[in-house]
Amino acid sequence: MSRPLVALLTDFGLEDHYVGVVKSVILGMAPDAPLVDLSHAVPPQDVRAGAFLLMQSVEYLPRGAIILAVVDPGVGSGRRALAVQADGLTLVGPDNGLVSWALARLARLGRCAVAAERGQLRLGDGCQAVALDRPRHWLPRVSRTFHGRDVFAPVVGRLAGGTPLAELGSSADRIVALPWPVPRSVGAGAIETAVVHVDRFGNLITGFEPGRDPVERVELAGRTIAGLSRHYVRQADLIALIGSGGLMEVAAPGGSAAATLGVGVGAPVRVWVARPSGDAPEPRVSSE
Amino acid sequence: MSRPLVALLTDFGLEDHYVGVVKSVILGMAPDAPLVDLSHAVPPQDVRAGAFLLMQSVEYLPRGAIILAVVDPGVGSGRRALAVQADGLTLVGPDNGLVSWALARLARLGRCAVAAERGQLRLGDGCQAVALDRPRHWLPRVSRTFHGRDVFAPVVGRLAGGTPLAELGSSADRIVALPWPVPRSVGAGAIETAVVHVDRFGNLITGFEPGRDPVERVELAGRTIAGLSRHYVRQADLIALIGSGGLMEVAAPGGSAAATLGVGVGAPVRVWVARPSGDAPEPRVSSE
Amino acid sequence: MSRPLVALLTDFGLEDHYVGVVKSVILGMAPDAPLVDLSHAVPPQDVRAGAFLLMQSVEYLPRGAIILAVVDPGVGSGRRALAVQADGLTLVGPDNGLVSWALARLARLGRCAVAAERGQLRLGDGCQAVALDRPRHWLPRVSRTFHGRDVFAPVVGRLAGGTPLAELGSSADRIVALPWPVPRSVGAGAIETAVVHVDRFGNLITGFEPGRDPVERVELAGRTIAGLSRHYVRQADLIALIGSGGLMEVAAPGGSAAATLGVGVGAPVRVWVARPSGDAPEPRVSSE
Repeated sequence: MSRPLVALLTDFGLEDHYVGVVKSVILGMAPDAPLVDLSHAVPPQDVRAGAFLLMQSVEYLPRGAIILAVVDPGVGSGRRALAVQADGLTLVGPDNGLVSWALARLARLGRCAVAAERGQLRLGDGCQAVALDRPRHWLPRVSRTFHGRDVFAPVVGRLAGGTPLAELGSSADRIVALPWPVPRSVGAGAIETAVVHVDRFGNLITGFEPGRDPVERVELAGRTIAGLSRHYVRQADLIALIGSGGLMEVAAPGGSAAATLGVGVGAPVRVWVARPSGDAPEPRVSSE
Repeated sequence: MSRPLVALLTDFGLEDHYVGVVKSVILGMAPDAPLVDLSHAVPPQDVRAGAFLLMQSVEYLPRGAIILAVVDPGVGSGRRALAVQADGLTLVGPDNGLVSWALARLARLGRCAVAAERGQLRLGDGCQAVALDRPRHWLPRVSRTFHGRDVFAPVVGRLAGGTPLAELGSSADRIVALPWPVPRSVGAGAIETAVVHVDRFGNLITGFEPGRDPVERVELAGRTIAGLSRHYVRQADLIALIGSGGLMEVAAPGGSAAATLGVGVGAPVRVWVARPSGDAPEPRVSSE
Repeated sequence: MSRPLVALLTDFGLEDHYVGVVKSVILGMAPDAPLVDLSHAVPPQDVRAGAFLLMQSVEYLPRGAIILAVVDPGVGSGRRALAVQADGLTLVGPDNGLVSWALARLARLGRCAVAAERGQLRLGDGCQAVALDRPRHWLPRVSRTFHGRDVFAPVVGRLAGGTPLAELGSSADRIVALPWPVPRSVGAGAIETAVVHVDRFGNLITGFEPGRDPVERVELAGRTIAGLSRHYVRQADLIALIGSGGLMEVAAPGGSAAATLGVGVGAPVRVWVARPSGDAPEPRVSSE
């Protein structure tokens, strides 16, 4: 039988022992599980940044993978803890929206069904969740500040060892959803969006997913870029292109667009498409 | 038979090839060993910082785990190299105190016995060590500057492959110990301690381990904090609480206490407990 | 049968999901492959920096290892993609010189034969390569910007799963070579070289590989260092010694030579040897 891959995404950083201890707990329970780090450099307590990286990763995880996702400003308070399953993937983490974009992404890919409802995702076909409310599956001593180690790691260890989801807690049918910065039509073929992530190379990834209508120009930080380029190879000091996750991004070939333009997450971006359909692209989180 | 987990703690950083080469040597000898990084971001040659992270990790490692621990300012000089075993864990590294707090922690947990003696730990029941003095177990060519790769990695590889400890070197009954910054009573329920670690979140972890007596107030960097909070959720700009390793820490919910207060490792901290016992908490390294 | 180790070297950083996704794709195809990170902190698009780390790592990889090496400023353009095999190791990456120093190193060790020819390495005995030109071995959808995930990871996954090299593309007999900054004799026992890498500790690693002739003195940044030291232990504020990769380096024991001297990669270094042979050391890339 194949051993499930365990992927990890946290804001724990790599300076301290936190990630190593989480992994040690998991491997103490499931010694054969291959571990993969998605990122541990999520800015401290930045749930949206973590949600974005999860969303960009989730379709590349092999079926059966278990994802420990912990960016958890509410640790120790009353916030719920979750394990959510969709089409062979299991996401484990706090119920603060961290996994919501990944789940919506899976829904867009037709791998499960979810519906956006007043700040929540209602889980539909192919999707199930439990609230992690059974301390017998956790470490014997649970600290107030490190549920990654004391609650989430042992739950992941049990899942990797074959414990069924339903055994780990009470059934849940809704999870907290983060609002996606949906691009909106502002008339005459113009669409307003924003920078949603800046990557290591200084590429400015936007919330806009180009569709069939060709992009005519992009405005950002007072600069105008004509059309989309096909790759990063130097053609101009600033280009727009479709990034590896399907979203439009702005790049400075051989340099950093973020540094060149002096902008970051949240910066407004305006896009003109050639034959405007009049509608903004379908918002991610309402897809089912 | 289960394959032993190998955990690694170094000051090698992740920029260079050093950690990757150490792992390659280990896996060349023990291809099935699961590897876990505790941290490689120990500040260069900061033995105490490494010792602290090891101490906080050691009880979460599964039985059978082997720890390669290399923060080694004396590499290439006459300093001894060690492998120390305690209750199913094996620590491998230079004899400069790096593993001493972890060993003392295991002793406090009743997993082995050690005694502090003039800057050393004398190993007692359940504890054994060897000096790594048999070059036949190392790489054929040993550099002067990279014993992590040339000495410690192959020794860990052999241990992971089943070579018994006694085969790897001459028996040793004492190891170098770092002094723990023991909190000391300064009368009238007041205890003096210090910041021993600043983590990624800017939490200031102190050397004080709260006991049964309730903490009344904490003084640090000219600020006074009343009592202990139970978690990080925002109640005040600055709180004190029991951290995930059992030690008292000072945190700024949603921010960095280190940045807020402008202090770091070594900063003095004073604690008042409600019904002072008159004694400081039992020092860690003398516990057996 | 032993599972081949997969080693990874990229400029993807650890902040984003890029490395995790690459690993997920590999493990989706070869679930049992042990993964080792050589480095992901190569400065963005710095092919030489990546080539250096690969060259320093390659001899410590166990036979059978597969190396994914991606520093790829030309991604999406016409640059060729390669898999190169030499004495049981397979290097997979863009054909931009990234793997050339590693291959030349293997040749110097007698593990394969290569010859430098007008900016290329011609592959000789024990060395074979293919151009990765068969999309059926890649992910179904290939982005323009992330061949690490879409091309190189699946090729590595197939190799790890046992697919023979020749199946992955058309045979290639030359690869792009980076020029090695060969130390050159400047008369009277003097040799000119340069800093080729600065490591985490601030050690300045030069292109000069000391031979039988003793080094008399080293000049760098207006400072003169007499002779070579044997290890890092503090003897002087600045020392020169033979580093763990066989190259001469300049170090500041207990500190950073790079910070002390304010120099970095490319800084000129002059070396005087006692009994000059009149020849500079054999250049690496022409060794066969």
